[in-house]
Amino acid sequence: MVDFKKLRINNILLAKKTIREAVCEDDFIINSINNIEDLAKVANVLCKRLRQWYSLYLPEMYNKIGDNEAFVRLVLKKDKNTLMKELKLSETMGSDLSKNNLKPILALASRIDSLYTLRNELKDYLKKIMGVYCKNLLTLAGTVLGAKLIESGGSLKKLALMPSSTIQMLGAEKALFRHLKSGARPPKHGIILQHPLVGGAPKNKKGKAARLLADKLSIAIRTDFFKGEFIGNKLKEELKKRLK
Amino acid sequence: MVDFKKLRINNILLAKKTIREAVCEDDFIINSINNIEDLAKVANVLCKRLRQWYSLYLPEMYNKIGDNEAFVRLVLKKDKNTLMKELKLSETMGSDLSKNNLKPILALASRIDSLYTLRNELKDYLKKIMGVYCKNLLTLAGTVLGAKLIESGGSLKKLALMPSSTIQMLGAEKALFRHLKSGARPPKHGIILQHPLVGGAPKNKKGKAARLLADKLSIAIRTDFFKGEFIGNKLKEELKKRLK
Repeated sequence: MVDFKKLRINNILLAKKTIREAVCEDDFIINSINNIEDLAKVANVLCKRLRQWYSLYLPEMYNKIGDNEAFVRLVLKKDKNTLMKELKLSETMGSDLSKNNLKPILALASRIDSLYTLRNELKDYLKKIMGVYCKNLLTLAGTVLGAKLIESGGSLKKLALMPSSTIQMLGAEKALFRHLKSGARPPKHGIILQHPLVGGAPKNKKGKAARLLADKLSIAIRTDFFKGEFIGNKLKEELKKRLK
Repeated sequence: MVDFKKLRINNILLAKKTIREAVCEDDFIINSINNIEDLAKVANVLCKRLRQWYSLYLPEMYNKIGDNEAFVRLVLKKDKNTLMKELKLSETMGSDLSKNNLKPILALASRIDSLYTLRNELKDYLKKIMGVYCKNLLTLAGTVLGAKLIESGGSLKKLALMPSSTIQMLGAEKALFRHLKSGARPPKHGIILQHPLVGGAPKNKKGKAARLLADKLSIAIRTDFFKGEFIGNKLKEELKKRLK
C-alpha cells in the first residue's frame, strides 16, 4: 500500500523547494524599481516639510531653489551667510534660530539626503543585475525604463512572449480599455513615453516613435530571454536612423 | 514735504523685522509634530516594501512579526539562521540570496531605522521645548497630543482663547459641521480621544471623560499662556479622581 502520509510530506517539501528556487532576477528588479519609485515619493513629502520648516530660518530659499535635491544639499552644506551671499540677498525675513532649534531641521535634511543616496545606490544595483540579465534591454531602454517594463510585464519571460504592440501600450491600460469599451481614441504609448527618443519627439511623431521603439525593444527582450548575443548598440543605431 | 520713498523703505524694513521676530515656539512645535506624523507615514510605506522584498529571503517573517519597527530591527540585527531559530522554523520557503542581492535590502532597512530614530529625536526635542513653553499642557496631555492640540488650534495663544468645548472638538470638525448642517449626532471628542484617560474609558463614559479632560486642558493651556505656576500634576490628579 502507498504511504499517503509520506507522499504528502514529500510533496510539500518539493513544493517548498520549487518556491525557494523560483526567486530570480525578475524579483530583484521588480522590488528595486518599486522601491526607487517609493523613495522618490517619500523624499518629496519630507522635502515639502523641510522647505516649510527651513522657511523660519531663510524663507527666501523656498522659491529660489526649485529642485528638491539641490535644496537639501544646500541646506546641509552651506550656512545662512554663505547662502545669502549666493542668492544675493542683503537681508532676510527669516529669524536667527538657536543651535538647538536648528538641529532638528538639519537632522531632517540629512535623512532626506540619505534617502536620495539610497535611491542612487539602488539604481546602480539595478544596472548591475540588468547588465547581466538583460543587457540588450538595458542598453536600449536605460535602467529605470527597462526595469519598469519588466515590472509592468511581470517578468522578462512574459515580456518576451508579448507582441511588440502590447509592450507599446504597457502602462496605458486604462486608456486602452477606455478605447476598447467606448471607442475613444486609442493611446499611442504607455510608459515607453519616458524614453528620450519618444518623449523628445515632436507631437505628431510621438506615435510613430513609440511604435518603432516598441519593435526594437521587443527584439532586444527576446534576444535577452533566449540568451542571444549583444545587439543593443546596433538596435539603438537603427532606431536613431529611422527617427531622424 | 514728507519723503514718501524713504517712508516706504522704512515701512518695509519694519515689516520684515516684525516677520523675523514673529517666529516663536509655536512654529517649532507645529513643524515638529507635522514632521513626526509624516515620518510615521513614510516609514510605513517603505516598511511595506521592505517586508515584500525580505520575503524573498525569509517569507515566514512577514506574518509572524506584526510591528513594523520590530520587523526592521530584527532584519538589521539578526541573520537568517538566528531568526529561524527564534521563530522556531525548521525550514524556510525563502531562497538564499547572495551578499550582493541582500545588500540593498539591508540598506533599505537601515534607512527606515534611521527614520524611526529621527522621529524619536523629534519627540525628545518637542518635549524639551514644551517643557519650557507649556509645561502644564505637556504634563496633562503628553508630548504628541499636546503638540497636536497646538497644531490644530494654530498657536498656544489661540488655544488659550478658545472655550474648552472647542478644544474638546478639535480634529472632529467634519463630524461637527455634519451635525450642525444635517442634525446628525454630534461628535463627542476630537483628537483628545488619543489621551489614555479618554481612549481607555468604557464606551458610554468616553464623552464624559472627553469633556472633563477638555476642561482641565483649557485650564492648563491658559495657565501656560499667562505664565502661571505649574499646576499640571494637580490637574492630572483631580481628573483621575473624577474619572474613577
